[in-house]
Amino acid sequence: MSRPVTLFTGQWVDLSLEVVAEKAEAFGFDGLELACSGDHLDVEKAAKNRKYCADRLQLLERFGLKTWAISNHSVGQATCDIIDSRHKAILPARIWGDGDAEGVRKRAIRDMMLSADAAANLGVDVVVGFTGSPIWHLFYSYPPNSPSEVEKGYLDFARRWTPIMNHFEDVGVRFALEVHPTEIAYDIVTAERALKELSHRESFGFNFDPSHLFWQGINPVEFLERFPARVFHVHMKDAAIRADGRCSVLCSHLNFGDPRRGWDFRSVGRGNVNFDAIIRTLNRIGYAGPLSVEWEDADMDRERGAKEACDFVRKIDFQPSDRAFDRISAKR
Amino acid sequence: MSRPVTLFTGQWVDLSLEVVAEKAEAFGFDGLELACSGDHLDVEKAAKNRKYCADRLQLLERFGLKTWAISNHSVGQATCDIIDSRHKAILPARIWGDGDAEGVRKRAIRDMMLSADAAANLGVDVVVGFTGSPIWHLFYSYPPNSPSEVEKGYLDFARRWTPIMNHFEDVGVRFALEVHPTEIAYDIVTAERALKELSHRESFGFNFDPSHLFWQGINPVEFLERFPARVFHVHMKDAAIRADGRCSVLCSHLNFGDPRRGWDFRSVGRGNVNFDAIIRTLNRIGYAGPLSVEWEDADMDRERGAKEACDFVRKIDFQPSDRAFDRISAKR
Amino acid sequence: MSRPVTLFTGQWVDLSLEVVAEKAEAFGFDGLELACSGDHLDVEKAAKNRKYCADRLQLLERFGLKTWAISNHSVGQATCDIIDSRHKAILPARIWGDGDAEGVRKRAIRDMMLSADAAANLGVDVVVGFTGSPIWHLFYSYPPNSPSEVEKGYLDFARRWTPIMNHFEDVGVRFALEVHPTEIAYDIVTAERALKELSHRESFGFNFDPSHLFWQGINPVEFLERFPARVFHVHMKDAAIRADGRCSVLCSHLNFGDPRRGWDFRSVGRGNVNFDAIIRTLNRIGYAGPLSVEWEDADMDRERGAKEACDFVRKIDFQPSDRAFDRISAKR
Amino acid sequence: MSRPVTLFTGQWVDLSLEVVAEKAEAFGFDGLELACSGDHLDVEKAAKNRKYCADRLQLLERFGLKTWAISNHSVGQATCDIIDSRHKAILPARIWGDGDAEGVRKRAIRDMMLSADAAANLGVDVVVGFTGSPIWHLFYSYPPNSPSEVEKGYLDFARRWTPIMNHFEDVGVRFALEVHPTEIAYDIVTAERALKELSHRESFGFNFDPSHLFWQGINPVEFLERFPARVFHVHMKDAAIRADGRCSVLCSHLNFGDPRRGWDFRSVGRGNVNFDAIIRTLNRIGYAGPLSVEWEDADMDRERGAKEACDFVRKIDFQPSDRAFDRISAKR
Amino acid sequence: MSRPVTLFTGQWVDLSLEVVAEKAEAFGFDGLELACSGDHLDVEKAAKNRKYCADRLQLLERFGLKTWAISNHSVGQATCDIIDSRHKAILPARIWGDGDAEGVRKRAIRDMMLSADAAANLGVDVVVGFTGSPIWHLFYSYPPNSPSEVEKGYLDFARRWTPIMNHFEDVGVRFALEVHPTEIAYDIVTAERALKELSHRESFGFNFDPSHLFWQGINPVEFLERFPARVFHVHMKDAAIRADGRCSVLCSHLNFGDPRRGWDFRSVGRGNVNFDAIIRTLNRIGYAGPLSVEWEDADMDRERGAKEACDFVRKIDFQPSDRAFDRISAKR
Amino acid sequence: MSRPVTLFTGQWVDLSLEVVAEKAEAFGFDGLELACSGDHLDVEKAAKNRKYCADRLQLLERFGLKTWAISNHSVGQATCDIIDSRHKAILPARIWGDGDAEGVRKRAIRDMMLSADAAANLGVDVVVGFTGSPIWHLFYSYPPNSPSEVEKGYLDFARRWTPIMNHFEDVGVRFALEVHPTEIAYDIVTAERALKELSHRESFGFNFDPSHLFWQGINPVEFLERFPARVFHVHMKDAAIRADGRCSVLCSHLNFGDPRRGWDFRSVGRGNVNFDAIIRTLNRIGYAGPLSVEWEDADMDRERGAKEACDFVRKIDFQPSDRAFDRISAKR
Repeated sequence: MSRPVTLFTGQWVDLSLEVVAEKAEAFGFDGLELACSGDHLDVEKAAKNRKYCADRLQLLERFGLKTWAISNHSVGQATCDIIDSRHKAILPARIWGDGDAEGVRKRAIRDMMLSADAAANLGVDVVVGFTGSPIWHLFYSYPPNSPSEVEKGYLDFARRWTPIMNHFEDVGVRFALEVHPTEIAYDIVTAERALKELSHRESFGFNFDPSHLFWQGINPVEFLERFPARVFHVHMKDAAIRADGRCSVLCSHLNFGDPRRGWDFRSVGRGNVNFDAIIRTLNRIGYAGPLSVEWEDADMDRERGAKEACDFVRKIDFQPSDRAFDRISAKR
Repeated sequence: MSRPVTLFTGQWVDLSLEVVAEKAEAFGFDGLELACSGDHLDVEKAAKNRKYCADRLQLLERFGLKTWAISNHSVGQATCDIIDSRHKAILPARIWGDGDAEGVRKRAIRDMMLSADAAANLGVDVVVGFTGSPIWHLFYSYPPNSPSEVEKGYLDFARRWTPIMNHFEDVGVRFALEVHPTEIAYDIVTAERALKELSHRESFGFNFDPSHLFWQGINPVEFLERFPARVFHVHMKDAAIRADGRCSVLCSHLNFGDPRRGWDFRSVGRGNVNFDAIIRTLNRIGYAGPLSVEWEDADMDRERGAKEACDFVRKIDFQPSDRAFDRISAKR
Repeated sequence: MSRPVTLFTGQWVDLSLEVVAEKAEAFGFDGLELACSGDHLDVEKAAKNRKYCADRLQLLERFGLKTWAISNHSVGQATCDIIDSRHKAILPARIWGDGDAEGVRKRAIRDMMLSADAAANLGVDVVVGFTGSPIWHLFYSYPPNSPSEVEKGYLDFARRWTPIMNHFEDVGVRFALEVHPTEIAYDIVTAERALKELSHRESFGFNFDPSHLFWQGINPVEFLERFPARVFHVHMKDAAIRADGRCSVLCSHLNFGDPRRGWDFRSVGRGNVNFDAIIRTLNRIGYAGPLSVEWEDADMDRERGAKEACDFVRKIDFQPSDRAFDRISAKR
Repeated sequence: MSRPVTLFTGQWVDLSLEVVAEKAEAFGFDGLELACSGDHLDVEKAAKNRKYCADRLQLLERFGLKTWAISNHSVGQATCDIIDSRHKAILPARIWGDGDAEGVRKRAIRDMMLSADAAANLGVDVVVGFTGSPIWHLFYSYPPNSPSEVEKGYLDFARRWTPIMNHFEDVGVRFALEVHPTEIAYDIVTAERALKELSHRESFGFNFDPSHLFWQGINPVEFLERFPARVFHVHMKDAAIRADGRCSVLCSHLNFGDPRRGWDFRSVGRGNVNFDAIIRTLNRIGYAGPLSVEWEDADMDRERGAKEACDFVRKIDFQPSDRAFDRISAKR
Repeated sequence: MSRPVTLFTGQWVDLSLEVVAEKAEAFGFDGLELACSGDHLDVEKAAKNRKYCADRLQLLERFGLKTWAISNHSVGQATCDIIDSRHKAILPARIWGDGDAEGVRKRAIRDMMLSADAAANLGVDVVVGFTGSPIWHLFYSYPPNSPSEVEKGYLDFARRWTPIMNHFEDVGVRFALEVHPTEIAYDIVTAERALKELSHRESFGFNFDPSHLFWQGINPVEFLERFPARVFHVHMKDAAIRADGRCSVLCSHLNFGDPRRGWDFRSVGRGNVNFDAIIRTLNRIGYAGPLSVEWEDADMDRERGAKEACDFVRKIDFQPSDRAFDRISAKR
Repeated sequence: MSRPVTLFTGQWVDLSLEVVAEKAEAFGFDGLELACSGDHLDVEKAAKNRKYCADRLQLLERFGLKTWAISNHSVGQATCDIIDSRHKAILPARIWGDGDAEGVRKRAIRDMMLSADAAANLGVDVVVGFTGSPIWHLFYSYPPNSPSEVEKGYLDFARRWTPIMNHFEDVGVRFALEVHPTEIAYDIVTAERALKELSHRESFGFNFDPSHLFWQGINPVEFLERFPARVFHVHMKDAAIRADGRCSVLCSHLNFGDPRRGWDFRSVGRGNVNFDAIIRTLNRIGYAGPLSVEWEDADMDRERGAKEACDFVRKIDFQPSDRAFDRISAKR
């Protein structure tokens, strides 16, 4: 059997979960990766109310859908970030509160713990999300970073996420950090470092999303080979680079969808990520979870795109071989 | 005649100007681009004391050197930045003061005005430097930037730099912003925007340094062709990219010189910047100023490198043709 | 709705329009781009006889087809060209007449005006075609061109096409020059120049055909971005380059289909043109007309090819997004 | 009509021919290329017993399948090789006998003659196979080869294969050497040499398999263009290269399927071989035989793969044009 | 000994030969390739007056210079071209006469014969030059070329050049056609054809100039390997391509030196031609003549450039090995 | 100080050591890497006779030369190889003896031990050489290798080299295997395996020669970074690939110098190896030994080449920086 193909609902929170579920069934998906946002999933309720969870699952079931992971990106982002007005726009009022930075971070940490409870109540063992980063703004070292500032940033992350991960382990749920710019880990080296800061505890791993690695110049396969046991979840998302000698890979403070950007997201299969190589490596490292389409392409109608993406993922995915060829074959 | 070749003293401020000048002569340079730092150039003195300026020039003359521009990067950086502890390390105490952010910015603005005076007193009509940026930390739009925040950042820059440029114009000196990550302009699109915010006033232009553009995916020639009248100064600095599928172009919070970075600076001529194409374009747009070596290569002994760089620049530079070939030639 | 997909009938004029229409329906097309040739469209009749036009449209309708543009390439070519025996082979006798060059050009000019009338009578507002060029033979400057000869060529084009375009405007039809070698405009620079020579009148624009730009080294997207308001019609045609170090991009006086050529046309989807990027840009610039397959591939059976091309175009085309993602999404 | 698409049974000899035939029909193939192995085809019986041959063909017919070629790789390998224990594993006992090298080679030669008889009895005029090589181990010249040793190797091949080919010609069957590492011919230069050694006799040609050429840096089209009259059979097999700067194209003594290899086989359509260009060239040189899928991809389930490969080959294959375009078309 | 390095005087005919010779000596050249133009070489005088020739050689000798070839490009161009006003600008009045096309061609043919006499009198056995072409304007086949027109063009060339080559052979001089756009041969295929049209007579060969082949996509080494016995003379000239997706390789009717062109000439060593590979191949095919710098770079001062080019050629050129390594070496 | 530049004498053994030394001094080298061949170094004498060693060193000293390593490739090759007639040509009679394979291997093993003694007597602590390989002929797995055969090969190597290395350690000398096709280690994976088989004993490391890695697709820097503590010696040797779609990287049984090969050696600086990156990495890993030119280029006169190579190595080599830039610099 191939892997289940799910749709991440984060790009569809303007619609009710029922509408999204109906569409997802029509597009051909096997399930949804529920965003902790809109009416898709209320973390607090889900953490405390098993009936609510059962209802959510029943709703999905009506459309033949299942769920293998839930996602809480925005709140996770607030756990370690330097808080500014942008966070207000993406956080629930109960987290933002009076906007005092340290208070926001503390409430966000507590909410991430609730996400683990919510997952457990839904019968799901992975929460996908972000961590934010106290040192992201230092990424280019001018004024020169002192090494100790970077060091301190990693320690701050570890200090905040150790209790979160303790709680995850208590309820038997794993956290999958989406390796992504603005997070404590955004490439291979920083992912190595984040694991080390948490003493390689087994409950902390990654949501592998090749689109964020590709434009940085990283071959996504290298990431998988480096962290075979830490791939807890997979996003199928594509990206393309515009190499015309005028665009910057830093994207000039321009919004997604602006053609002057050096790179942008693409409907899966229309960008430059090599998904065949990714499937081979996922087979090799034994990843058996869902392939979750995070559909984002500023140029394209999302319904057309989501359907096309679902078809693409089914076609590119395949099961590994169960035999060695030169043991069968009369020739090569 | 080819252009003069100068050495920027910013990487040599651990040595006295006299020692640097002696070395520069031995390396073969025609002059120095004086850093407003160490004993190389005291902006306040130079702004107010013509005798000090005459002494500095005389010192250079003893080693057969001239100067065509002075540089004040660190102070410029503080004019628009969100101030943090890193600025303290690079600012003179008189600017840092009590470290209150707005106070630092104001003192930095005043110091940039003094830089213009210093230049005028030295008989030099270009100050090279940075502006910092209130929106650099927003470069990756997550949490999502609202367009108005970016907009506000550009306006803040314009508000702070309008009085500075008024003063520059009063004393007949131009400012050359080094287009560089962490500045208000770091690529072609943001450079266009910065010019627009200052109403394209003619005293505000750029210090063209191809090393900062190259690794972003920008062909430096495209920059020159886009802003032919705004190239007030030129840095000769090289860079190389490591495209091994594991390194990130964002460089993983690693210091310069770490081989796991996706790119790094190189001694001029040892990287991947196409300097022949740059010279052709500088000839075409009529740039007649110095070619100033900003020598930085974390892997190499700087004395060996500076000499090699000087030789390289002399060899790659050339005068344009004064005739059209098909008007002379019997054939092509 | 996606754009209509049409078949240009120029490569099928050995068949009656009825046969072509029957095949086009079977291949899956929405309409035809009628060639002014064979029995497909008699320009003179169509210009003067509305009944003839109604009959043509009715014939198409029987096969569920429509038309959005007509094409008159060969006659257009004769308006500015240096006339030789090759023109005789492609021109109707009424245009060729006695073959006197200036006479041919004048009759061709008159016929192009009739094309506008024909289009109007068919209820179509675009005529696609060629202009020829008095200076094409000068493309490589040996013996050296004097600049004035090139200049004169552009003026000659403007002189001949001004009355044509006056007539087009009188009847409310636009002309779409297919940018193509041997025409007054064959790349971005010459297209800029042609527009300028006609004072940027709004009735004169382009038939965008990426296959002709691609092998010249031009990214077709750059053409679209340079002339967003001038794309009046779009040809879907593909091409491939053979980069083996022995073939010349000038193609050695060899016919299409010879494998020793440096490039050749390809059935859409089998060459190297990036049609996904083209669709994105067409969406961005608001092109709402048909995607017209000009099917040409010297290696392939045309019926197999036309069907495959129609399927490909439907699959690659898509509607733009009607929302900004970071306004919906809880994360990126 | 397009070419028939067959499945080579060499990778399926763990299954009975009946099972393979049933699967092949379900996958969509037109026929089988029978491996002389397992119960698929007993060369000795087939050479001597026409009834056996009729039965085999009848079995195929039950599943709507035909055959155009049979394959005898392992035995062919033994005709010229330096024999070692690896040969024992792939040879029938009747060929291996006591394992004395020269005896093995002689018995293998006799068996290859029987293959021709078997083909004739099956009504098939091509035997696909290997030759082995006495000089393969010399491929890297250290200790330095003397030219005479290489020379002697080619002569040895000619001496052994002249009687084989005499017999092939007697029974009207041709031999198609699969150009492949470890054979007397493994690239263009060695294929030229092998033909020369057999005086270019017309019964000796090649089984073209692009996967073996591709990773050596050879464009498979160049092979076809060099030997247009010698392409007796075609394998559709794909390969991919891993260019990460750490893998070796020599593959480090690692098995197929190990991700550290510099290249590996791929299910047709998932590698980097340009099959469109191959089909064009096969059309041009007039190859009218089957396209035979040799399915091998160590990463993939073979049943999924074989079906996908069959679909891919049907889609990529096409008939040539029967007309010249510029003789029809009113424009280009 | 390495090969002599000469300077072609065609780009210096605004100066007297004496001045050119003085400069060439200073630049470091061994000799001059004399252009039949200005006062450099009067073909008619040289053909008839041995004293004139002796004087020219003596002038060279005063500056330590020799000559190995003379060049007559403009007049050669007129032998087969369709004559227009551009030819008037490059032809001596005695050739242009009344400008009647056929008359011009006949006088040009006669002058090319005189060039052979001139060469003989100078003790030189190679004349370098052009042939022009009656079919150059047909290079892009629209309106479609009939094959017979191209055929006729080659025959016309053969008809005109057969008597010229007869005369060359009578006086023991060879003609070296510079393979170049606008000539009967401009790439490998057309060069093959030109040789065939002249029945491969041994006196007709080529002046190899890689700059003209490079931008067409031809690897210059492939040309040398195809015509090892026909390389009678070598021009060292470089070129660079601008691959920015906006420039056309056909160069938009723009003059040399315009940065919007898709390619341009470069001072030797500053372009993209691989001269190391060329030297290796020249050694292999046994070319022992001069390496003649045809210096042309619209961006650069020619005196600076000529000196730099001479140094570059001396450095890149080398003698072949006189031994096989694995016959000496104890290891590889 | 930069590193010493030496010339490996293996390609010069047709000359007496005295002649080679005289030439090496003239070329500009600092020393010689003595080949154990010809009169350059007699291993047996050197192992037993300290006076002989002193004389050799004195001879070098007369020409201002030193030595840092000796090389014994041919004999090392015989220690693990399957012996054939090619070995006879490269082995001293005392090793070849009666040519019985196991006897040859045993005598070669004993001679390698003597090489350590010779090195010790010369005051040198590195012997460079080969090991041969019992499994090289299995590099392409057809007939299929059983994993156990490869395994057995590595064990055989370990069995033979353990006593050799014991002896090396006894006399305080290290062995540097030149990673090279036909050796037990020829790429990164096999080098890892060889180290493991010898339990990572510290006396066994590598002679890094980038030319052998480059054409296999390996970035030489990756090798250095994988084995920083095992680089005991460095060969400066260059190579170039011919990527024309016709040549094979396996080189078609053709000799070095044949242009149809897919790759070949090049005089240092004329191939495609990135030596600047290599120097940076050597500095980083702390390699302080000589840079030894193994000069081999079948196309070039060796004397011209050796001089050019020596100059190139001096120019490309440099000392590392002794400071961090952002600790000095006022800006970046």
